[in-house]
Amino acid sequence: MTIRAAIFGGSGYGGSELLRILLFHPDVEIAFVTANEHAGKRVGEVHRNLLGLTDASFVPAPEDLGSTDVDVAFFALPHGQAMDLIPKLRPGVKAIDLSGDFRIDDPESFEKHYKLSHSATDLQKEFVYGLTETNRDAIREATYIANPGCFATATLLALAPMVKSGLLTGKIIVDAKTGSSGSGAKPASNTHHPQRSNSFYAYKPFTHQHVPEIAQHLGKVVVFENELIFMTHSLPVSRGIFASCYLETNLNLANEDLKHIYSNFYSDAFFVRLVDGSPDINWVKNTNFCDIGTFSNGKQIVVFSALDNLVKGAAGQAVQNMNLMFGLDEKTGLIFAGGNP
Amino acid sequence: MTIRAAIFGGSGYGGSELLRILLFHPDVEIAFVTANEHAGKRVGEVHRNLLGLTDASFVPAPEDLGSTDVDVAFFALPHGQAMDLIPKLRPGVKAIDLSGDFRIDDPESFEKHYKLSHSATDLQKEFVYGLTETNRDAIREATYIANPGCFATATLLALAPMVKSGLLTGKIIVDAKTGSSGSGAKPASNTHHPQRSNSFYAYKPFTHQHVPEIAQHLGKVVVFENELIFMTHSLPVSRGIFASCYLETNLNLANEDLKHIYSNFYSDAFFVRLVDGSPDINWVKNTNFCDIGTFSNGKQIVVFSALDNLVKGAAGQAVQNMNLMFGLDEKTGLIFAGGNP
Amino acid sequence: MTIRAAIFGGSGYGGSELLRILLFHPDVEIAFVTANEHAGKRVGEVHRNLLGLTDASFVPAPEDLGSTDVDVAFFALPHGQAMDLIPKLRPGVKAIDLSGDFRIDDPESFEKHYKLSHSATDLQKEFVYGLTETNRDAIREATYIANPGCFATATLLALAPMVKSGLLTGKIIVDAKTGSSGSGAKPASNTHHPQRSNSFYAYKPFTHQHVPEIAQHLGKVVVFENELIFMTHSLPVSRGIFASCYLETNLNLANEDLKHIYSNFYSDAFFVRLVDGSPDINWVKNTNFCDIGTFSNGKQIVVFSALDNLVKGAAGQAVQNMNLMFGLDEKTGLIFAGGNP
Amino acid sequence: MTIRAAIFGGSGYGGSELLRILLFHPDVEIAFVTANEHAGKRVGEVHRNLLGLTDASFVPAPEDLGSTDVDVAFFALPHGQAMDLIPKLRPGVKAIDLSGDFRIDDPESFEKHYKLSHSATDLQKEFVYGLTETNRDAIREATYIANPGCFATATLLALAPMVKSGLLTGKIIVDAKTGSSGSGAKPASNTHHPQRSNSFYAYKPFTHQHVPEIAQHLGKVVVFENELIFMTHSLPVSRGIFASCYLETNLNLANEDLKHIYSNFYSDAFFVRLVDGSPDINWVKNTNFCDIGTFSNGKQIVVFSALDNLVKGAAGQAVQNMNLMFGLDEKTGLIFAGGNP
Repeated sequence: MTIRAAIFGGSGYGGSELLRILLFHPDVEIAFVTANEHAGKRVGEVHRNLLGLTDASFVPAPEDLGSTDVDVAFFALPHGQAMDLIPKLRPGVKAIDLSGDFRIDDPESFEKHYKLSHSATDLQKEFVYGLTETNRDAIREATYIANPGCFATATLLALAPMVKSGLLTGKIIVDAKTGSSGSGAKPASNTHHPQRSNSFYAYKPFTHQHVPEIAQHLGKVVVFENELIFMTHSLPVSRGIFASCYLETNLNLANEDLKHIYSNFYSDAFFVRLVDGSPDINWVKNTNFCDIGTFSNGKQIVVFSALDNLVKGAAGQAVQNMNLMFGLDEKTGLIFAGGNP
Repeated sequence: MTIRAAIFGGSGYGGSELLRILLFHPDVEIAFVTANEHAGKRVGEVHRNLLGLTDASFVPAPEDLGSTDVDVAFFALPHGQAMDLIPKLRPGVKAIDLSGDFRIDDPESFEKHYKLSHSATDLQKEFVYGLTETNRDAIREATYIANPGCFATATLLALAPMVKSGLLTGKIIVDAKTGSSGSGAKPASNTHHPQRSNSFYAYKPFTHQHVPEIAQHLGKVVVFENELIFMTHSLPVSRGIFASCYLETNLNLANEDLKHIYSNFYSDAFFVRLVDGSPDINWVKNTNFCDIGTFSNGKQIVVFSALDNLVKGAAGQAVQNMNLMFGLDEKTGLIFAGGNP
Repeated sequence: MTIRAAIFGGSGYGGSELLRILLFHPDVEIAFVTANEHAGKRVGEVHRNLLGLTDASFVPAPEDLGSTDVDVAFFALPHGQAMDLIPKLRPGVKAIDLSGDFRIDDPESFEKHYKLSHSATDLQKEFVYGLTETNRDAIREATYIANPGCFATATLLALAPMVKSGLLTGKIIVDAKTGSSGSGAKPASNTHHPQRSNSFYAYKPFTHQHVPEIAQHLGKVVVFENELIFMTHSLPVSRGIFASCYLETNLNLANEDLKHIYSNFYSDAFFVRLVDGSPDINWVKNTNFCDIGTFSNGKQIVVFSALDNLVKGAAGQAVQNMNLMFGLDEKTGLIFAGGNP
Repeated sequence: MTIRAAIFGGSGYGGSELLRILLFHPDVEIAFVTANEHAGKRVGEVHRNLLGLTDASFVPAPEDLGSTDVDVAFFALPHGQAMDLIPKLRPGVKAIDLSGDFRIDDPESFEKHYKLSHSATDLQKEFVYGLTETNRDAIREATYIANPGCFATATLLALAPMVKSGLLTGKIIVDAKTGSSGSGAKPASNTHHPQRSNSFYAYKPFTHQHVPEIAQHLGKVVVFENELIFMTHSLPVSRGIFASCYLETNLNLANEDLKHIYSNFYSDAFFVRLVDGSPDINWVKNTNFCDIGTFSNGKQIVVFSALDNLVKGAAGQAVQNMNLMFGLDEKTGLIFAGGNP
């Protein structure tokens, strides 16, 4: 079987990484990749890392989506565009949306956090949240996938085992940090190299749009009523998310017990690596791995997670989900290591 | 008045920054600067940023400290050396220790965290903790100063106003991050450029030696019985400490109320700048400023602080303390801006 | 004497550094600083490194320049604006232009390289080129200064002694590298952090606008007829220029002879430091120093120079020139070290 | 066919990259990988990027090399060790040496540049220089390969077409820059993060050990008698080599003519990509590509090349050579893209 895939929005970092992965996927053929601004240009001219690896050119978004002959469409567009396009797809075409359009069930919460009114609320219930490791069965059956945000992936993978364990008490604090590519490919003041290269700062305190996404999906792992405090910071690196999660239990949990909880939960999760010390974004960059380290001190627990925001936090997880949706091994096309260093 | 100052340990980053500040201090003359390894070399040969700015050469540590003719001695040596040297100083010579030797009252706690037995426990009670902004009166009268650690400075300045307010309830979580210069001038695997330049990771979970220092000195601001969780992380920048402090109160505190608490507490603190958004290590690098930003969300509070680990976190605060000890304006020689960018 | 200074264009990096230096200059009072976009905002709100150090606010550019009561005006505006404003200044007001408007004598060459037609060609002859170390006497007498470009400063200081020696033969090749702040404070694709942070590349081969500036001013040091090849590259650092200059002589010149030529030429140049090994931008960042290292190998010579593009390459040299124009020691307000590290 | 490969020296960066590539090579089985210091440790414990991707552990170097049952042995050891080991291999075992031991024909030149006396000079003539793109036929027949240095690869690939064209006149100047991983995995003062992260400097002027390697192998492309000046600089990035090569011809060569020379020379070279503008290390990092850009200006020419020092400059080219030695397509196992960004 060859899966014919379309990529909507191929000029941003998410689209670029989808191309990098799908070009080498043994079961995928890229039908077309859109980029209105760069339509007509060769892919390798825009993403010069791909020069020599593909002859494809960007095309404008097709006017008649209903007649598009593909098996799956990836949407790596700015928030607010996929919800207009996905309803127009030919029935039977699967869709994986890397934007935030279908991650939040509650339309009011969506509007508040994304400053957009939702144009396809009726479609929301058909979307499955694509956090692969906690949601495989539903993903296998899904037609539409809401691919998780990068912060949400790092946070949910760190928290899910403890939330499910039922041992948590009190509030959860997540101190999360992201690399600059998380802000996208368009230059802006917060990604201006002279400012960013020696900086570290927090942003959007108490208001980040991933908060409702995280809370909602923790609530699907198990009943979740703890208070969640989620704080985002900017790192002076290009790639990487690192989350430090502070938890509290009502009993003294030895380090071994804690590790046991995590290794049980992730026993069949190839892309979650449980590490002995702290994870490091250096070791997961350019890969689909999420590394997790856990430490306890009496009733206090800290869980660290690290991933590449563009791979496990976006394009890699999207392909992992596609693999499941088409009956493939979820690892297909995704087993590659980052470099050392 | 000209203060004759000696620097013990001039070849590390702390000593280098002391030199950079004291060379331009209007009331200080550097009597000598020691560096056993580099004895005989010109200062500008080792610290090439100082080339052309001083003709001084490093000397070996004097054998007879008791006859040293200086008014003040700075100790920027590895942990464990100042406690042997300070007792030998001529009576009347003031000493400012940038190491951890005299920061912790409790000898057992010291031994546990520094893996050293203390050789001058009887001198401990004569040391005043040099967190200038909370301790000015005692510093003015002090002969001996234990200069705070860089993490401790960032954390204590962020927490002190709220701890003193008496409004805190529950545990305090401090997620702290440091630049690579905090590990000193000697190459090591954790500061190897290929590994460090695109990395972010946590270290010493639940065991960092600044924990007892912070707890003890919070306890001196006011009775402090809250639980403190302090977690250290490594940033891929050369300079800077950033602390994200998560607090909880028993009442809803508006942002304005919170800002009021901080502006009252720091009304006479030139080097603490209260900022509207998040602080950023980019804006405090190379300066003696500590920038603090505060945010509330009902009963949840986050306080961010940023400083330069080598200046406000080490040499700058040491000179600030020296100024007070000699009756000078605490700002003398310390009013300089970092660059933008 | 207090010099009343105006800064036109205070929101960019050049203006920011002028502010940082002039705020602490013992003989200068800043009369006003313009920034149309930020008019009304506090300086410390825009340049947060200056927070707490000045109460000044940005003002719009005054409509009637002729009645402006200042002694000197600095122009840190985009290329093409100073040439419209300087003719309107009240007679007797000195002007120092940090843009390229008056650096090139030949209007055709100016138009070719700056893509602008010149509106004040008649004023060109009244401008003195502000490369302090080679031009002091003329600068002292000048009313108008064309402050050199950052690349031109690094290159000319590296080449001038050898050009003047008359020993050069054959072409000169300059391989120059710049930090990202050289592109200014406005975000652009070449300074987008994700792209820039791990990059190195060349730009504008054979066409950089500093070529005619360098050639013209080398020609003023002495008759200069050698071919000059000047190539610019982008470094993934915020600050710094490094120039590697390849020269050839018609005799075997020992390293000592070479050093002698440079130390003679720069015997009274405080801000040029001749170093034994290679200079390093790390050691000159945030300072007004230009470090130069020289090496010979028979008839082949390489000269390396390093400086901070925003200080010696812009604002610092501008103040150095102002000092001379007002009869002050050229070092006034400019003696400060960068940090180690 | 499965090629059984041994790696001697698996703990450094060269060995690490060999592992990363060979683990996924469809025709290779890793027989063993040595690392005396880490013997017994799991590969993924030392190279944490490989965690979860292999169960292999490091072994000590076998005492009896003659009985080692492998088809090919890679040597990624410090200079001076392979020349002792390779003579002990069982006859018929192919060897690829990533060190400098067999790159230079002349023993005196070797001793001068590597400060080592050569213990296997008689074996020198059996080594083929592994610059794949210029030497394929000999590599196919070779038993022993001297894998080129990273600087030499970048320089030779940039120069070979013009040297072969016979159009060069006068000296060649190569201004080369390298990332910090080129100094190896062992911490040292020149790779100490606080110093390196904002630095740029030159090193070893006129004395780098790659000079004789480059000169010798240019001389094998064609008779080469031009003077070669080669200068090395340190970049504040982890990975990447960038070479700026200044050439001169005796006729006016249009840009098109120049591009024609290069595209002809590299018509069958998949891993050499000729780019329109400047290459950028950002686009080749983590890949086996060498990107080359060419520009002419009358008789002056500049050629820029960029590659990843650990891949095309070391492990990648070694595998490319192994492929040829075993009759495989040279691209096997090496077609992967780096990320954008």
